[in-house]
Amino acid sequence: MTHRIADIAAALGAEFAGDGEVMVRGASEPQQAGPDDLALAVNPKYADGLAQGAAIAAMLWPGADWQALGMKAAIFAPRGRLAMAGLTSMLDPGPDIAPGVHAMSVIDPTAQIGAGAAVGPFVTIGAGVVIGPNARIASHVSIAEGATIGPDALILQGARIGARVTIGARFVCQPGAVIGADGFSFVTPEKSGVEEIRETLGQRADIRAQSWTRIHSLGAVTIGDDVEIGANACIDRGTIRDTTIGNGTKLDNLVHIGHNVQVGNDCLLCGQVGVAGSARIGNRVVLAGQCGVNDNIFIGDDVICGGATKVFTNAPAGRVMLGYPAVKLETHVEMQKALRRLPRLAAKLAEREKVIQKS
Amino acid sequence: MTHRIADIAAALGAEFAGDGEVMVRGASEPQQAGPDDLALAVNPKYADGLAQGAAIAAMLWPGADWQALGMKAAIFAPRGRLAMAGLTSMLDPGPDIAPGVHAMSVIDPTAQIGAGAAVGPFVTIGAGVVIGPNARIASHVSIAEGATIGPDALILQGARIGARVTIGARFVCQPGAVIGADGFSFVTPEKSGVEEIRETLGQRADIRAQSWTRIHSLGAVTIGDDVEIGANACIDRGTIRDTTIGNGTKLDNLVHIGHNVQVGNDCLLCGQVGVAGSARIGNRVVLAGQCGVNDNIFIGDDVICGGATKVFTNAPAGRVMLGYPAVKLETHVEMQKALRRLPRLAAKLAEREKVIQKS
Amino acid sequence: MTHRIADIAAALGAEFAGDGEVMVRGASEPQQAGPDDLALAVNPKYADGLAQGAAIAAMLWPGADWQALGMKAAIFAPRGRLAMAGLTSMLDPGPDIAPGVHAMSVIDPTAQIGAGAAVGPFVTIGAGVVIGPNARIASHVSIAEGATIGPDALILQGARIGARVTIGARFVCQPGAVIGADGFSFVTPEKSGVEEIRETLGQRADIRAQSWTRIHSLGAVTIGDDVEIGANACIDRGTIRDTTIGNGTKLDNLVHIGHNVQVGNDCLLCGQVGVAGSARIGNRVVLAGQCGVNDNIFIGDDVICGGATKVFTNAPAGRVMLGYPAVKLETHVEMQKALRRLPRLAAKLAEREKVIQKS
Repeated sequence: MTHRIADIAAALGAEFAGDGEVMVRGASEPQQAGPDDLALAVNPKYADGLAQGAAIAAMLWPGADWQALGMKAAIFAPRGRLAMAGLTSMLDPGPDIAPGVHAMSVIDPTAQIGAGAAVGPFVTIGAGVVIGPNARIASHVSIAEGATIGPDALILQGARIGARVTIGARFVCQPGAVIGADGFSFVTPEKSGVEEIRETLGQRADIRAQSWTRIHSLGAVTIGDDVEIGANACIDRGTIRDTTIGNGTKLDNLVHIGHNVQVGNDCLLCGQVGVAGSARIGNRVVLAGQCGVNDNIFIGDDVICGGATKVFTNAPAGRVMLGYPAVKLETHVEMQKALRRLPRLAAKLAEREKVIQKS
Repeated sequence: MTHRIADIAAALGAEFAGDGEVMVRGASEPQQAGPDDLALAVNPKYADGLAQGAAIAAMLWPGADWQALGMKAAIFAPRGRLAMAGLTSMLDPGPDIAPGVHAMSVIDPTAQIGAGAAVGPFVTIGAGVVIGPNARIASHVSIAEGATIGPDALILQGARIGARVTIGARFVCQPGAVIGADGFSFVTPEKSGVEEIRETLGQRADIRAQSWTRIHSLGAVTIGDDVEIGANACIDRGTIRDTTIGNGTKLDNLVHIGHNVQVGNDCLLCGQVGVAGSARIGNRVVLAGQCGVNDNIFIGDDVICGGATKVFTNAPAGRVMLGYPAVKLETHVEMQKALRRLPRLAAKLAEREKVIQKS
Repeated sequence: MTHRIADIAAALGAEFAGDGEVMVRGASEPQQAGPDDLALAVNPKYADGLAQGAAIAAMLWPGADWQALGMKAAIFAPRGRLAMAGLTSMLDPGPDIAPGVHAMSVIDPTAQIGAGAAVGPFVTIGAGVVIGPNARIASHVSIAEGATIGPDALILQGARIGARVTIGARFVCQPGAVIGADGFSFVTPEKSGVEEIRETLGQRADIRAQSWTRIHSLGAVTIGDDVEIGANACIDRGTIRDTTIGNGTKLDNLVHIGHNVQVGNDCLLCGQVGVAGSARIGNRVVLAGQCGVNDNIFIGDDVICGGATKVFTNAPAGRVMLGYPAVKLETHVEMQKALRRLPRLAAKLAEREKVIQKS
């Protein structure tokens, strides 16, 4: 499928220059671009690449001299990455799932699937499930009894939607994600070592040999609108009430969300982030890759945590954090600087000590 | 399904007060409770919630004045979380898997499946597999050739049980778990950089360009009784002998267990914990979320590691640890306190230095 | 299946002593070995084990006195682990997948599957897929439209190969791996907090409430020859160009590779490693378990990172690193030593301060 430059510009709400009738078939990095590609050069550093490639149309930074760059047509992106969102959405062919419900699927007769659905092979949909219109459900997906999913869902290969899970509109679920596994909640007959050290901050009395009994998860998971869940990510059910994920929140691959956790709206939880049971996370929180959040704590709105930050205590709104344990970013930088110099400092002090001892 | 308060109390071995004939359908947090719900208020902090909700029956902390709280019946839980285990077990409807073996499954004729099985659609069970009575196996599960699974297993959607894996009684496997993938074991023709730096503690001679050859995993995985494995968790096969998981041990979501690892009885390995190849972990060890255990080391009985602790060396029995690298919890707290103060201390020493230099 | 000792030795290019006609059925640790097993004792520390077991044939360290150890035949392994690679490859029965394509699979008529294929039940293969000869594809695998896979592939249960992914020869894919999920790439209408703090190093002006818009992934994933991907590992598509994994590189379980990442040849990425978007990793890089690599940085050839190292900045070729944030291994050791002594040092300085104040 090809697109006119003028149409792309119109769709993006962007301006174009040159011949709006130029047709492109896809997008490319400037140096790899063929004559059918829209070269993506939203920053002057890509100018050289344009010369190496064969594109005649490009998306350029504001004010670029498109004719000097050898283009016949150009789209101008005042905010390049935002334009990328619109452009990639236009050009994405999406997954190949045939319309209708594949014959080799097992759909409970009481399930309601909205109009316009495309359901691939080896899908199971349980009793009482309700799915909104225009759902695209790839192969090997399972949607268990009583789940409710809003309109325009895209659920990719092998994703698992658990019983009684509720999901809003425009849901995107990457392959292998598990939404609604049982929470990890166990109890010993008498006080466990973990309970003890939480009270004593590390001291232990006699250690008892005990086994763990399971606390079942009666709650489910509630997910808002415009949520995306990454590949092989896991969200556990709540114990009594639901675990919740707010509107507009995005979870990356291999993220772990424990039971009873509440995540607010418009958050980004990057690859391999882990949030322990009953933690609460505000709105617009960004947790970079491999961050960890302790159980039962609260992360305020607009908190940003750098890579692998481990948050053990409540974090106030707006704080920028880093480290294990997490501290303010600037504190972390200071501490690390001082720690880098510490071996030399300690050696110097030891040297001085010797002098003092002698004198 | 509804339950009499008197029956619930009897099942939990707990006392009740008031009208034992009151019927409940489910459990709820106090403020959300409807008249059919048993409100869960095992701690006085929930008293206000009870007033907001509509429950007429509650599970209460010992000594609570149930009549003043407006209840018609009350169950008293001397150890609230333990009562929760019994109660949630009673009220959990469990997954909806039809009795018998679904027609769209592929079961090898030599497989033996015990009486009372429920096997969902798109399940594969390989040659020579033996599964005990009352197994519940959800959709998309694969159980490879020669695996043996004890009675009362619950294996959820898309879990993968590898060839010749042995599992005990009452196994619970969350969706997407992979038990019995090949170990991550590779060797270079000559000494690799990793082997070299282990000997030299970081020094390297000439670096050779070499490729890795696979060491296949001939061992399998042996899992005891009463084990639960979390969603998308992975347990690798052993190289020659089996990787082992002891009785009563629970693994959370996305946990990684390398080849040849031995985990003892009654351990808890929380979300995203990773245990590298050939490590040995004792009994009743608790590893909080995102902990890491180095290869070939030993963690003694009853060790407890806080969140994201990275254990590089053997840990004696009973130790409580935190940090990267792991140290005793109290040592970690002291070190972090001192590190927090270090920038100020260093500045002060530099100031004094200037004075000394001048004088 | 049994093997003559002389044949095993020949296959490994190793020498043997004693009766080459002795037959073995499998391999075993010395103390568990039965009379049909080849005992693996490639190091003198296993000598005692040999005496406890019942083996009559063993793989021994160079120069071992096989007769004194009670063996009838012995194979000598100058580099034990390398011999293990050859031996385990011979003895591995491999997964049980019947030749041909299982009737309960859904193969697009335009897909080309090379000669000698074994395709298990509940497999989907999309339009235009090209798979080389001798592929072994286990149950529940999905291979989406336009993917290309080289000869001799082994793809295990429930693995997900995304659309237009390109994979070389001798590919090994463990169960549940997801290759070709969409990248985690989102943009806000105006500058986000993350963009802001990257410029200001932590300072924030007014915080705006904004939602995230998805940047779709138009690129795919390109994987070289001799690559192995671990269970439940995830590799995301590139935004415009492909995410790439070089020849001979091995990824362990639960590894996360973000969009646009380039990993070189002959790397080892161990369990739960995470590599953020657009990072580049050279050749022969070894990242131990739970390492993290920041987005957009470069890791030079032959870098080795110890367990849970978090790399925030470019790393030069050949460096050996540890820590959060990553520093040279020797620097890390020095810093940790100094930090361990810091509380005592600080106390001593405080004591001295008191003396100075008084005098």
